[in-house]
Amino acid sequence: MELGIVGMGRMGAGMARRLARGGARVIACDHDKTAREALADEAGVECVEGYAALAAQLAGERVILLMLPAGAPTEDALRELLPLLSAGDTLVDGGNAFYRDSMARALELSQRGLRYIDAGVSGGVHGLAHGYCLMLGGTPRSVEIFEPFARILAPAPETGWLHCGPSGAGHFAKMIHNGIEYGMMQALAEGFALLAARKEFEFDPGRLAETWRHGSLVRSWLLDLCAEILKQDEDLESVAPVVADSGEGRWTALESVELGVPAPVITMALMARFSSQGGSDYARRLLATMRASFGGHPVQMK
Amino acid sequence: MELGIVGMGRMGAGMARRLARGGARVIACDHDKTAREALADEAGVECVEGYAALAAQLAGERVILLMLPAGAPTEDALRELLPLLSAGDTLVDGGNAFYRDSMARALELSQRGLRYIDAGVSGGVHGLAHGYCLMLGGTPRSVEIFEPFARILAPAPETGWLHCGPSGAGHFAKMIHNGIEYGMMQALAEGFALLAARKEFEFDPGRLAETWRHGSLVRSWLLDLCAEILKQDEDLESVAPVVADSGEGRWTALESVELGVPAPVITMALMARFSSQGGSDYARRLLATMRASFGGHPVQMK
Repeated sequence: MELGIVGMGRMGAGMARRLARGGARVIACDHDKTAREALADEAGVECVEGYAALAAQLAGERVILLMLPAGAPTEDALRELLPLLSAGDTLVDGGNAFYRDSMARALELSQRGLRYIDAGVSGGVHGLAHGYCLMLGGTPRSVEIFEPFARILAPAPETGWLHCGPSGAGHFAKMIHNGIEYGMMQALAEGFALLAARKEFEFDPGRLAETWRHGSLVRSWLLDLCAEILKQDEDLESVAPVVADSGEGRWTALESVELGVPAPVITMALMARFSSQGGSDYARRLLATMRASFGGHPVQMK
Repeated sequence: MELGIVGMGRMGAGMARRLARGGARVIACDHDKTAREALADEAGVECVEGYAALAAQLAGERVILLMLPAGAPTEDALRELLPLLSAGDTLVDGGNAFYRDSMARALELSQRGLRYIDAGVSGGVHGLAHGYCLMLGGTPRSVEIFEPFARILAPAPETGWLHCGPSGAGHFAKMIHNGIEYGMMQALAEGFALLAARKEFEFDPGRLAETWRHGSLVRSWLLDLCAEILKQDEDLESVAPVVADSGEGRWTALESVELGVPAPVITMALMARFSSQGGSDYARRLLATMRASFGGHPVQMK
């Protein structure tokens, strides 16, 4: 029971460790020496630098898990890996690729006799300890091949991983998962912002979040995180009020438009992130100037 | 260790049972015979019909918990109860009152020598088994008096209940809690709606929700509920697409306006409920007619 993993970032390294501790032989591949050295302490993980070494170390029908950022890094890795693979090998893309790209990739790889699984992976840096939630898309046979590894990676052998459907279904499910996450995170953030703004009550937001974790309807893993964060620093004044986004929220909003099915809260959470990135600044300048033009209201200049 | 509870609805009855099972003597008051009879099986709960009997059954400085719908039912009960109470008695309002009303009530009652706690209670019908999350507002002494009961009602003696701050802070915290809940619920509902609409994947939403419960970033009690619901009936075709709202969401949106602190997702979730109630219908008719007027687009007639 052996597999290769490409990409020893936070997710890939955690998954390599969890698989090794679960009894798998793991060949971990990363071009970066520091990333490889960080795994030197993990018995059961062998690190290699290049794809040729990775392919050579794996016998029989290989299983290779790609844990790389979606887009160019994953594309480039695939292009370099492909000539080294043989019919019957299984590639599992654990990055956050757009599901239509994954559908196209599955088709392309199947024409070379290769198996492909699009794997949505959730769990973040806590996955090593608690297990990863896996949403798998692909043929039943491909998923059967990957199942022994899914059973180790998931929180328990029978829970937290699912064959969601045909190719694309895994990354689609992950996209929706992340869209929901955008909305939930924004709802929590707005609530705590209102609590902090109503100063006369002098709320202790960390203690309130901790209280909500027990018995309340909003208890959730994201609330657990908020409690941890707010107990340490309730003002967060050293953090710039800028929230990045990374593809999945945008795709969920596009999906809503394409299907004609409203997703106002998920879309609004995405728009709020764009605003935080400065995306509303031009509109704001124009609004301030319009108010000045029609009403003589003062405009704050830079 | 005894207290009275007024209102044997789902919440009140569950709390009466949990308190009795935790060792308290509970005098449960409800005008409705069926509600009283439903509690006949619970040792440690004595049911009375009227407030006079309630007041007479409690000795010394009384503690009375009101578990009634906010507004008129709570107001009426207070008006009838007040003449029967004595200085030093403690009233705990576990309904979802507006926090400013609770602040005014605390002041009014303190002028009569009565103690008042505004108690936000979360947990729903599952609270009996798992405990209720309690957010308490009031003086330290009032909360100290109620503490033995809070320790039984909460999921554990030391967790899930909090003295949030002065009068009003409990109901304020509950209001924000419910606002967050609106946003989280809407995000989940939108996500599952998109999954259902992308029919070619033939997702099993109940199994996917169950999978997300383990290790994913959206795991939450509301997701647990979704998993239960969708496993039983994924289409929900017998349910009318109308979502009620009950005060707290509106107050959270008003709070956002009053403070000038944006809560776009919570507000959008509230607006989505208004739409579901038909609140958008006039605007929709006008929009359809405008499109016909400027572009000759067909209008669907009733």
